[in-house]
Amino acid sequence: MSSPSLRVGVDLGGTSAKIGLVRDGELVRRAQVPNPHDLEACVASIVGAVETMMEGQSPDAVGVGLPGVTDDAQRVILSAPNLSFLEHQEFAFALERRLGVPVKLENDANVAALGEARFGTGAHYPNFLLATLGTGVGGGLVLNGELWRGPGGMAGEFGHVTVGHTLVCGCGSVGCLEAVASARAMERAGEEAIGRSVALPELIGLASGARPDPRALAVFERAGRHFGEALANVALLLDLRVFLVGGGGAPALKLLEPHALAVLDRRAFGRHAADFTLLPARLGNDAGVLGAAML
Amino acid sequence: MSSPSLRVGVDLGGTSAKIGLVRDGELVRRAQVPNPHDLEACVASIVGAVETMMEGQSPDAVGVGLPGVTDDAQRVILSAPNLSFLEHQEFAFALERRLGVPVKLENDANVAALGEARFGTGAHYPNFLLATLGTGVGGGLVLNGELWRGPGGMAGEFGHVTVGHTLVCGCGSVGCLEAVASARAMERAGEEAIGRSVALPELIGLASGARPDPRALAVFERAGRHFGEALANVALLLDLRVFLVGGGGAPALKLLEPHALAVLDRRAFGRHAADFTLLPARLGNDAGVLGAAML
Repeated sequence: MSSPSLRVGVDLGGTSAKIGLVRDGELVRRAQVPNPHDLEACVASIVGAVETMMEGQSPDAVGVGLPGVTDDAQRVILSAPNLSFLEHQEFAFALERRLGVPVKLENDANVAALGEARFGTGAHYPNFLLATLGTGVGGGLVLNGELWRGPGGMAGEFGHVTVGHTLVCGCGSVGCLEAVASARAMERAGEEAIGRSVALPELIGLASGARPDPRALAVFERAGRHFGEALANVALLLDLRVFLVGGGGAPALKLLEPHALAVLDRRAFGRHAADFTLLPARLGNDAGVLGAAML
Repeated sequence: MSSPSLRVGVDLGGTSAKIGLVRDGELVRRAQVPNPHDLEACVASIVGAVETMMEGQSPDAVGVGLPGVTDDAQRVILSAPNLSFLEHQEFAFALERRLGVPVKLENDANVAALGEARFGTGAHYPNFLLATLGTGVGGGLVLNGELWRGPGGMAGEFGHVTVGHTLVCGCGSVGCLEAVASARAMERAGEEAIGRSVALPELIGLASGARPDPRALAVFERAGRHFGEALANVALLLDLRVFLVGGGGAPALKLLEPHALAVLDRRAFGRHAADFTLLPARLGNDAGVLGAAML
């Protein structure tokens, strides 16, 4: 019998790092430490939490998920707008030297998709796209049960797929999904429609219930339609039929779904709405830590 | 040592069927027979040509590429607008009964991509999209050296990916790539710009040379830009870097390429024009027969 595997997953965000110890696929310990936005301090913060958590044992491997794009070898962060202090730095190398085990880096949406593939919905669906609707829109593709990183390691950039609108995205291009379907974009559209600042949970509340606010409904109709266009592109190219939705915008899925399915029915040549399954991601906040541990 | 493999590939089009005998990966014999647009007559036409070609020997397998979508088991044609007499018929079964060997069916662009993967560009590039610019626009994805059919068997429908325009496509949707970048769509745009009917080779001629016609140039600029948008969607999702172009529109590649690359440079987040390789498909008219033999 092989000895039990002990893996550490790190979900590194803009303000904090969530850290989890995964024993034989089960998340047995958790910690959260601040992200000090300085290379050495960030490494020290993560290493300290891992050492406390491990109580003298050594993990077999450490993986880090983060909001950015890594090189093909999963060693260097090429671009991470909210973690620019880590771009092109020896971050993985520094962690590895301090922890004495191999460290891999990966985009956070890819990591979440890997988590879902191993511990969530993947048990039932070997092929899916995980779309994360958060500050931005991310994506991770699981094909034949494996995370698809692509030949350059940058696959899954679902948020910048072209859909039929003329708004300018934060990336500078016109027509990206992110510009209309991120949690932040829906809030912005809600603010414009209602005339005051409105957080997504409140906007969802306004669009639900017995007498929904037509202004709030219109926000989700528009986002849902464009979400469906982007999903149709994925369906046309890869013939995926299962789409998971995670991130802070996931609670809006019920409101987005009918509009997305109507577009899928029309655009995904040869397929019908009933061929598609839209589901909330199963692992929620644990997906990042669980997936990172599996890198 | 294993005995040499003898495979038959059939490239079934609207008006004729091209048939080839492939021995150990080499196309050793070819034939072309009419497509009589009747199930029994079509089967008889193909079987007669195969029997003549085989001179009493039996092939190990027969594959048929055709302009349509097949079921996941590659046995039944679900939709083929130009071969509607074969939809939902026992075509594969009838061929199999007459020829005594297994018969598989597959979409023609997928088959051409498989041909390129095995005998063409695939030797150098294990991951690519083949885009076929013909009467319509088709596509075939090769991932890790294998044809990606998708969980439902309908992958590679590159022609109906959304790009930023408002024309209605033959499929009924708005904004499909096919409506602006098929060989036929470019001819139609040329006719509008120039005021008379113009075939694609002439339009290419007008846009080339020392004093190119600005009206013809504009046709390729527009098609190239939208082609780049669709390729950017593929790059964003799958991080593919290599795109092959086949079909009757392939000679326009040199005119489309700079506009497509400019869009890829701008839209494919994190990548640059120099990261991408656009190439004409290598096998030309033989891709269909060679790929079908490999099904």
